[in-house]
Amino acid sequence: MNVSGTGIGSGIAIGRVVRMPEPLPEPVDRPSTMSPDAERARATAALAAVAAELRRRGAQAGGTAAEVLEAQAMFAEDPMLEADLGERVAAGKTAERAVHEAYAAYRAQLLALGGYMAERATDVDDVSQRVVAELLGQPAPGVPDPGYPFILVARDLAPADTATLDLDQVLALVTIGGGPTSHTAILARDKAIVAMVAAEGASVLQDGDEIIVDAENDLLVTAPSREQLADAEARRVARAARLDAPLTPGALSDGTPVPLLANLGSADAATAALAAGAEGVGLFRTEFLFLEAATAPTVAEQQAEYTRLLQAFNGKKVVVRVLDAGADKPLAFLDAGDHEDNPALGLRGIRALRAHEQILRDQLSALAAADAETDADLWVMAPMVATVEEAEYFTSLAHEAGIRVAGVMVEVPSAALLADRILPTTDFASIGTNDLTQYTLAADRLLGSVAALQSPWNPAVLRLIAEVGQAGRALGKPVGICGEAAADPLLAVVLVGLGATTLSMSPAAIADVRASLLRFDAEQAAALAAVALAANSPAQSHDAARAFAAAIR
Amino acid sequence: MNVSGTGIGSGIAIGRVVRMPEPLPEPVDRPSTMSPDAERARATAALAAVAAELRRRGAQAGGTAAEVLEAQAMFAEDPMLEADLGERVAAGKTAERAVHEAYAAYRAQLLALGGYMAERATDVDDVSQRVVAELLGQPAPGVPDPGYPFILVARDLAPADTATLDLDQVLALVTIGGGPTSHTAILARDKAIVAMVAAEGASVLQDGDEIIVDAENDLLVTAPSREQLADAEARRVARAARLDAPLTPGALSDGTPVPLLANLGSADAATAALAAGAEGVGLFRTEFLFLEAATAPTVAEQQAEYTRLLQAFNGKKVVVRVLDAGADKPLAFLDAGDHEDNPALGLRGIRALRAHEQILRDQLSALAAADAETDADLWVMAPMVATVEEAEYFTSLAHEAGIRVAGVMVEVPSAALLADRILPTTDFASIGTNDLTQYTLAADRLLGSVAALQSPWNPAVLRLIAEVGQAGRALGKPVGICGEAAADPLLAVVLVGLGATTLSMSPAAIADVRASLLRFDAEQAAALAAVALAANSPAQSHDAARAFAAAIR
Repeated sequence: MNVSGTGIGSGIAIGRVVRMPEPLPEPVDRPSTMSPDAERARATAALAAVAAELRRRGAQAGGTAAEVLEAQAMFAEDPMLEADLGERVAAGKTAERAVHEAYAAYRAQLLALGGYMAERATDVDDVSQRVVAELLGQPAPGVPDPGYPFILVARDLAPADTATLDLDQVLALVTIGGGPTSHTAILARDKAIVAMVAAEGASVLQDGDEIIVDAENDLLVTAPSREQLADAEARRVARAARLDAPLTPGALSDGTPVPLLANLGSADAATAALAAGAEGVGLFRTEFLFLEAATAPTVAEQQAEYTRLLQAFNGKKVVVRVLDAGADKPLAFLDAGDHEDNPALGLRGIRALRAHEQILRDQLSALAAADAETDADLWVMAPMVATVEEAEYFTSLAHEAGIRVAGVMVEVPSAALLADRILPTTDFASIGTNDLTQYTLAADRLLGSVAALQSPWNPAVLRLIAEVGQAGRALGKPVGICGEAAADPLLAVVLVGLGATTLSMSPAAIADVRASLLRFDAEQAAALAAVALAANSPAQSHDAARAFAAAIR
Repeated sequence: MNVSGTGIGSGIAIGRVVRMPEPLPEPVDRPSTMSPDAERARATAALAAVAAELRRRGAQAGGTAAEVLEAQAMFAEDPMLEADLGERVAAGKTAERAVHEAYAAYRAQLLALGGYMAERATDVDDVSQRVVAELLGQPAPGVPDPGYPFILVARDLAPADTATLDLDQVLALVTIGGGPTSHTAILARDKAIVAMVAAEGASVLQDGDEIIVDAENDLLVTAPSREQLADAEARRVARAARLDAPLTPGALSDGTPVPLLANLGSADAATAALAAGAEGVGLFRTEFLFLEAATAPTVAEQQAEYTRLLQAFNGKKVVVRVLDAGADKPLAFLDAGDHEDNPALGLRGIRALRAHEQILRDQLSALAAADAETDADLWVMAPMVATVEEAEYFTSLAHEAGIRVAGVMVEVPSAALLADRILPTTDFASIGTNDLTQYTLAADRLLGSVAALQSPWNPAVLRLIAEVGQAGRALGKPVGICGEAAADPLLAVVLVGLGATTLSMSPAAIADVRASLLRFDAEQAAALAAVALAANSPAQSHDAARAFAAAIR
């Protein structure tokens, strides 16, 4: 049987299913047979045990996972929560029920706050489940360890689950829910794990079932035949060979260069990106310098960090995006201003920076100073540019600060529609396909209920990319892509056909994209793009591109 | 001196300034010299007096204003608020301070809830000010009454102010803040009041200053010369004559028909729309049937309302939009589903209806039944269509239910970009320029800090409208406009030049638009559209269109 879903990347895996345990049932609301003090002692012990266990797993995993799990542990130690819990056991409830209710109330408060806090609701659920499991003496929910490599099938994965995945044991990830921008999908791209999300039909799979996860073809094969297994194995081996291929510069088969760049969130990731064959950085996000700070970092602090980045990419191109702040990313030193009902449509990106121009001027100064003391090829761009006037504003301010190459991100539909008027005022454009898709379809890219609308294969999104590509060619201005779309090996060829001159992606995706580009010449890429553009829907666009690619190979 | 701003409509007014009083200063936090009981009694009396005054003004105004003011009065009688207030005076605070603090806390709670509740924050401020004024024995904040016709200049206007404006006395409205979608702008369009918003320079005006408000030219003239006054008076008289012109059907000067339709929110407004010369209804919003209800209205209840509407427009075209529900409009019987951080990008419009298909089926059945017993020409359309597949879904469901003409609203950029593929699957398109602008610019149309981005003159928005117009002409399908853009007399001509076949607007705007259309033939309208499209910004587009129009007259 075939199950369809959304494949992430172009991997293929063969293995046996292990299902993620279902959540524990809600504890029954019956009067406790113990004293409130005894119930309270049980709850306190369980909370402490869970906090300790989360910290232990964090220490084992290290890095970002340790931070994520520390934050989780703190949800088991919140004094407000303990007070609420105390009141509930005092009213005669069991520790299990009191924990369940106290966390549910806590979760509701987080949701009411919205934004970043609301996104923590899943983490709170996870901690609540762990404490209840501890009280019931049942195994904590989480990724099972069957003792052999397996394909993990889950409804969806919490950050605490994905942070500690043993990548030697997990052959592939399959989620029944989620979408191409879910936590699982982002992790899979980042770590080059074979994955499929939104695979509704996978809910019937049982522990031990042998399956093929064919991400490239958005397909999951259950009870595969001997031929299907042999074919999958051959493709798996061929792909492994591609991943081991020499780190040549990105190019089409006719030699047209398509530099393959890395999306990075900090200078620490530079080594890994270079090892994966990145020819530079296509998107360096600078939010990490600002997110945790009580005041804006000084010019000197920023300069040190940018210098470290540029030194790592000596002689290579590095595109830095200035701070993409907004109401959904609470920055203590940026005045929140008006309450925003729709922060994604609010004062974010270049709009927020104009309202706090000194922050932008400082960042540009720090970048120019770092550029002066290193030998990388620094380009700087502004997020959320929507108008010609904003492009002029940023470009002139950046040039004035000593930045030689200044450009704009195209992620608002108006910027794509006016590309022929925006590009003459700036040095380059870089298309952020994630946000561009979100706005073009008017569908929040982090919202599950509209995830089906969130595909960069949508011909409307491709039309907008084509507008920018056309303007770039006509005016001789570079047009990069730095959204997740560039990490899809076949879509990457379409993007080049539409006029993209560089592609930037998670370093893990570079090998697959390199191999894919080498199968097409410039004329074929343009023809492939035309086929994708002419379709009625993302699925038809993807199918038509696959059929076209298969025919010319 | 000239002050620039955003004119609403095309009116012109000459008169003397009366400034809206500035808000009262915040009551000082000093210990009360009275007993808590005495302070509490003062506060209770002031609250009761304000509630009674609001109700009295509501009864005087009647209609919607009465409802708005009843809601305001309830903010003065909230028992939770009274309890909070009691605690504060018990702690030794003055009644003024306690009222101020209690309302501030209440306001913060509303803001935290977000969405509809957050929008009530301004109303709470207004009530708080009224109660404090009552306690201080000062005049209640609100619209002054100098005893002669005047031009009201305010920072911004609260609903309680606009609901009770005496239109015989107010020659024009000028707000220093606000934008083209602010409360003041909507009221001005609705009542055909001469108005200018976002006129920052107006903050220097003093009571008694003589000014000209020239909405058509986005201009406010202070200390006008004798020639300027004479010219303005001549234009005012000419416009008054246009408004008194016979109610001929909408058409260009060469006779090309452009039916002028009304946007309506309930059947009650039918008589006024017909009196204003509406040739039918271009957008009938059905939310009012659902918003206040605990359960969805029955088919019979809906049918009765639709029948009443269709009977009022016997022999005329009536375009009904099915329920545009979403997370920002809380409907008790629609499962809220996921928490939405950005409800404008969430499960709204056709997306929400598909998730609750029975509600859609019932509405279509009620519409088909009402159509069968009346003689209007009923068209039905779906909001928030983003894909070809959604257009097919709605059109076939509507035809199946017995609706003869079924179409889609184009307010999501993807729908405009795919118009050539969407229109073949449906009977007509109607462009909602307000939402289309919001999504194309990624700027919340209700958020003040990004109001400058919210202009339908933006050439990117005009490009998308042109895409739909072109597809409509090529396929012979009608393309209507039902956003506020159609109410702008010059933009209305541009829209026809871009391919719009009908225009729908607030009935108050029809006379100006009719007169404007009669000044251009089809070829001139197309040339005007080309000029507007070629500009770099909304301001340049508007200026270029004005210059072009002036040259051909």
